[in-house]
Amino acid sequence: MKNHDTLETGRALSEQFNPGMEATLEARYGHLLPGMAQSTVDFVYGQQYARPGLSLRDRYLATIAALTAQGGQTRPQLQINIAAGLKAGLSRREIAEVIWQMALYGGLPAAINALNSALEVFGSHDDGER
Amino acid sequence: MKNHDTLETGRALSEQFNPGMEATLEARYGHLLPGMAQSTVDFVYGQQYARPGLSLRDRYLATIAALTAQGGQTRPQLQINIAAGLKAGLSRREIAEVIWQMALYGGLPAAINALNSALEVFGSHDDGER
Amino acid sequence: MKNHDTLETGRALSEQFNPGMEATLEARYGHLLPGMAQSTVDFVYGQQYARPGLSLRDRYLATIAALTAQGGQTRPQLQINIAAGLKAGLSRREIAEVIWQMALYGGLPAAINALNSALEVFGSHDDGER
Amino acid sequence: MKNHDTLETGRALSEQFNPGMEATLEARYGHLLPGMAQSTVDFVYGQQYARPGLSLRDRYLATIAALTAQGGQTRPQLQINIAAGLKAGLSRREIAEVIWQMALYGGLPAAINALNSALEVFGSHDDGER
Amino acid sequence: MKNHDTLETGRALSEQFNPGMEATLEARYGHLLPGMAQSTVDFVYGQQYARPGLSLRDRYLATIAALTAQGGQTRPQLQINIAAGLKAGLSRREIAEVIWQMALYGGLPAAINALNSALEVFGSHDDGER
Amino acid sequence: MKNHDTLETGRALSEQFNPGMEATLEARYGHLLPGMAQSTVDFVYGQQYARPGLSLRDRYLATIAALTAQGGQTRPQLQINIAAGLKAGLSRREIAEVIWQMALYGGLPAAINALNSALEVFGSHDDGER
Repeated sequence: MKNHDTLETGRALSEQFNPGMEATLEARYGHLLPGMAQSTVDFVYGQQYARPGLSLRDRYLATIAALTAQGGQTRPQLQINIAAGLKAGLSRREIAEVIWQMALYGGLPAAINALNSALEVFGSHDDGER
Repeated sequence: MKNHDTLETGRALSEQFNPGMEATLEARYGHLLPGMAQSTVDFVYGQQYARPGLSLRDRYLATIAALTAQGGQTRPQLQINIAAGLKAGLSRREIAEVIWQMALYGGLPAAINALNSALEVFGSHDDGER
Repeated sequence: MKNHDTLETGRALSEQFNPGMEATLEARYGHLLPGMAQSTVDFVYGQQYARPGLSLRDRYLATIAALTAQGGQTRPQLQINIAAGLKAGLSRREIAEVIWQMALYGGLPAAINALNSALEVFGSHDDGER
Repeated sequence: MKNHDTLETGRALSEQFNPGMEATLEARYGHLLPGMAQSTVDFVYGQQYARPGLSLRDRYLATIAALTAQGGQTRPQLQINIAAGLKAGLSRREIAEVIWQMALYGGLPAAINALNSALEVFGSHDDGER
Repeated sequence: MKNHDTLETGRALSEQFNPGMEATLEARYGHLLPGMAQSTVDFVYGQQYARPGLSLRDRYLATIAALTAQGGQTRPQLQINIAAGLKAGLSRREIAEVIWQMALYGGLPAAINALNSALEVFGSHDDGER
Repeated sequence: MKNHDTLETGRALSEQFNPGMEATLEARYGHLLPGMAQSTVDFVYGQQYARPGLSLRDRYLATIAALTAQGGQTRPQLQINIAAGLKAGLSRREIAEVIWQMALYGGLPAAINALNSALEVFGSHDDGER
């Protein structure tokens, strides 16, 4: 029965950080890949992000670091995770710092490209605090 | 004068987390690359890890995430950073969690390989569970 | 004389799956890189895709898998190979499945980005069967 | 209830292609990452490889292609999947062909390194040519 | 005092090959990452490109090779370095050749994408010699 | 008839920089991949390295840069190309410089790992400093 719980847990967490994600995935990919939306919610949110042992804030910090170091080909996902990281308690400064630090591991171009992605997200969240 | 400070700051930090690193780099690579050891300490520690705005613990978390997602080709550096992350306050559990989460971004093989690297570091630090 | 044959074999195969490719490469890059168009047709189609031992359908399946796992930076080539894979006998469902499976090896973002590329190709091939 | 089934399905498939995998993961990583072994079996085998729409033989072909194109850092996983691909019906020739084709996408060094990995697997399976 | 010199050296070199770069970085990222523009000029130009032992022309050749082999995700940086490479004495032909050679190491798609980036730069520098 | 020439040209060049390569590839992989050794010599040496427009010395410089930036998974090929680069006229210092510069694009760990590979090659070529 455990896995039934991971799907439900994943749904609750996913709705909190990416509202409507499962429905969007189902509408976009469901005709080609039945069950893919449910699998994503279950594994990503229910079996990974919902794990105890590391805070959600730290998990988003790690994800932003990884997507930056992998280079700009994951721009849409990087931006989704930056927005989610802000919700999870990361400050803009912390996000900018972790991206810039990735110059050491993914190279300067990857860091600069990711900073540009972050600036776009910050621009569209311009509701006060920097 | 700022940069003189970044070199000194970098040296202090580097000695704390990787004792002897500058001397090792100099001994190993200095005959081929004069100044490379100093540059590394200055840029990596003095101009990156020493920056305010993100804690050292968080910086090591991010580095471990990135090196994992990039795949196992950076094993020695991953292990150095796992050891430094333990010093900076990360628990073994947190390190294992962030590595496993990278299955989502760098793929399952990269995560498994990095877990094996972590186990080796943990084994050689077996001085009481954290 | 063998290689003369690989160029001719490559031309025949290339015309079948990417009509006009050699001429397009020559027109676009020939002034800078004399012979590059011919080299590409010879090596890619004549010396690789035309090899016995694996069907063309399987070769396109493998290419789609690899380009997906490498991340979205190869979008134009991924789309060309998805279109060629349909010609070689792959179904849309098989293409979607192999892309989604790559979440395990190239990460979720790479798989999602590639699915979006596939949807665009499928949309422009909307002549009946899904 | 669906997910309960994916775990059971995954276990059956995993035991067929990698006997003892869940137990090995649990023994090796369970103390650091409770539930990780179960998650892997559930997601990798139950929610990915067990999907209809693409044969297991084709799935292993795609995995071998992807791990080759990503470079040699996933050698252990590449070898596990080559062995599983043989069980799923791929011939040695087909495996060699798909690896060599990856020279076009992951570069020559990645293809050569993967061929070496395959030779090791073939050597340890030397119970009559396929 | 050495590092003070690397910053000044870096500034002189940076102004020669990317006029206005430090000011642009400061204006764009300085509010989020104080000192980042200065660090970039210091490390990239002062502590790397300004090193003796390899000519600037060769350094740009190497950078173009690396950014090509890493795939198209670094397009803006690739184009900046192609333009700088022309200033440092590389011919268009040499740039095209090195990019095309990278088909061997980064795969054909990466080489083709980089050639397209180069054509765009060459088009906007169309002041005579090819 | 052109391609017949590329194979012969490739053989001459290959024998000069990697004596015995075609025979080694044939002996090692020929039973699985008939014609692969010949294809490699033809494409790599005959259709790429033998192209006019860029010197062999520059081509090896570019290759060393690219293999470094891609990370340590291509160690054997990196070492083969460092040895060939020495034959083509690169100095040890130039090779070390270009590897170290790659810290900017492939990250510090990739550069350090490649320096270690170079030291091994230099150690086994210790017949008078260059």
